[in-house]
Amino acid sequence: MAHRVDEFTLIQRHFAPLSVGAPGSLALRDDAAWLRPEAGNDLVVSADAIVGDVHFPANTSAGDIARRALRVNLSDIAAKGARACAYTLALQLPDFVDDAWLSAFADGLAEDQDRFGIFLLGGDTTRTPGPLVLTINIFGQISENNMIMRSGASAGDDVYVTGSIGDATLGLALVRSELRAVDPSDTAFLEARFLRPDPRVDAGPALVGIASAAADVSDGLVADLGHICAASGVAADIDRDRVPHSDAAHRLVTDDQPLRIRLLTGGDDYEIVFTAPEAARDSISAIAANTGVPMTRIGRVTPQTADGPAVTVRDAAGGAIEVGHGGYRHFEEGDPRRE
Amino acid sequence: MAHRVDEFTLIQRHFAPLSVGAPGSLALRDDAAWLRPEAGNDLVVSADAIVGDVHFPANTSAGDIARRALRVNLSDIAAKGARACAYTLALQLPDFVDDAWLSAFADGLAEDQDRFGIFLLGGDTTRTPGPLVLTINIFGQISENNMIMRSGASAGDDVYVTGSIGDATLGLALVRSELRAVDPSDTAFLEARFLRPDPRVDAGPALVGIASAAADVSDGLVADLGHICAASGVAADIDRDRVPHSDAAHRLVTDDQPLRIRLLTGGDDYEIVFTAPEAARDSISAIAANTGVPMTRIGRVTPQTADGPAVTVRDAAGGAIEVGHGGYRHFEEGDPRRE
Repeated sequence: MAHRVDEFTLIQRHFAPLSVGAPGSLALRDDAAWLRPEAGNDLVVSADAIVGDVHFPANTSAGDIARRALRVNLSDIAAKGARACAYTLALQLPDFVDDAWLSAFADGLAEDQDRFGIFLLGGDTTRTPGPLVLTINIFGQISENNMIMRSGASAGDDVYVTGSIGDATLGLALVRSELRAVDPSDTAFLEARFLRPDPRVDAGPALVGIASAAADVSDGLVADLGHICAASGVAADIDRDRVPHSDAAHRLVTDDQPLRIRLLTGGDDYEIVFTAPEAARDSISAIAANTGVPMTRIGRVTPQTADGPAVTVRDAAGGAIEVGHGGYRHFEEGDPRRE
Repeated sequence: MAHRVDEFTLIQRHFAPLSVGAPGSLALRDDAAWLRPEAGNDLVVSADAIVGDVHFPANTSAGDIARRALRVNLSDIAAKGARACAYTLALQLPDFVDDAWLSAFADGLAEDQDRFGIFLLGGDTTRTPGPLVLTINIFGQISENNMIMRSGASAGDDVYVTGSIGDATLGLALVRSELRAVDPSDTAFLEARFLRPDPRVDAGPALVGIASAAADVSDGLVADLGHICAASGVAADIDRDRVPHSDAAHRLVTDDQPLRIRLLTGGDDYEIVFTAPEAARDSISAIAANTGVPMTRIGRVTPQTADGPAVTVRDAAGGAIEVGHGGYRHFEEGDPRRE
């Protein structure tokens, strides 16, 4: 019994401090928490689970797991134009998780809570005979009826992405030693882009009233733009040479064509892909300048065709490039919320 | 790839229909959902995960797993005085989960959605090499500042429980063949009390403004009343002979004293234990009559003492009965939200 009580005490110690700042958390000492959106606001909710060995390599540090889980969820809220305020955390902990691990994990959460202004509202913790599972439900606020949905794109709209695309898929391959970069600082940069994505928490809300549709790039640029197209009943053309890649990605990919395609179809970028009418170009330039987040116009929304692909990637000559199934469709795309 | 796409299709088919009725679910076709509490209401949030083999026997049917998971969460919301409206569902599915299993699971959810008036708002689904994990975040509404907390009990308040206590711990023992009941209908009744608890969704909200503190009985009567005591800075005395047990429980337990104690310390009743001032006795009788849910006065809140137990169980002569550690403290009591 002493062992079990100790675990209980440890969790109280590590997690209760993360709830300070959220009065509705009741210091994690009740069966439930309360949450009150500001008057005139909707609550935006997103749920994401990450599973050890499936979503991150087994040797990922506790702090990186914590940060990555929060940031993946922050990205969902940001892509909808909302500002995150709180989250719940359900943990299934394998036997290897001890006090030191929990301490590093809670430190990772605390660091990103500070960085992003969010608080732990509640949760649940159990032991499991299986892999580590970490389920976050994150809550954001947005003025009523202003959530940026996937379904608002119209033929003729421009297509944009924030930041750079493909770094995370290269970073994951580097973490797994499937690739090697020549320059160690490129390796560090690309691995960090996978492990510690930078959710676009200011750029997303700045796009409210400007973007006609948006999604975060989690499954890969082609797949996530495809989700927008499916929900909006449209198609899209993107110009491969306009898709922004980091210098590190350019140095690693060089002229390897399959790897170049993988930049467009690999997941985990946590950038925002969005559409907007042509009339918004100046506004978008201003938002990019104000937020410091590059917003690159990469293509255009087109009418849906009966048998064409949702997303066509074109080369400099305008020819369609074969990108396979349009984004690696791993099982979690079966997510009930994902098209 | 065909196999994976099929899984994706299956999940769309099984889960999207569960979101009809929640406009903010966006038919599960976006990255996030929206939720708008009625004006003047707080949102109440509770998160609970259940893990195969840990929280239910491995041979539990898909429909029973679905119903149990929803009801455990509905109970948390009801005990706070709130009315549930929606939930998110994160699933980690082992390999044995196929179309037939998902179909039965979704049918179980659909049945209880209808019964309790709630809708699926969003979620996430992944495969796992480990056991089935099912994390529900449930959302309820309550008029502002009216959530019934654990922390409101005062010395002199009465202690009540709804329904009957101890059926579920006997039901679990029967499911596991650790016990045998003489009467098959008793076995069926007690097993159903474990597998399909009846959350007090009307009785809980009826206690708003009446109960000074409340919790649902998930960890066991003594432990959950102990949680109220800890959060309120009080202690409590309960009279063993007043604690209500079902006829089936009486027939099974007879004069087995350890088993009789286990009724008070075993978990999973999903009744409500609550406190209220003496002046509320008539109101509580009326609420019991109106809701059809028995509410039995079983003891009294007392001042906290420096070294006494939080909860003392007394026999007919007023002597303290040893109940061990005050409720089986399995690891999930390490829940950040549980005292």
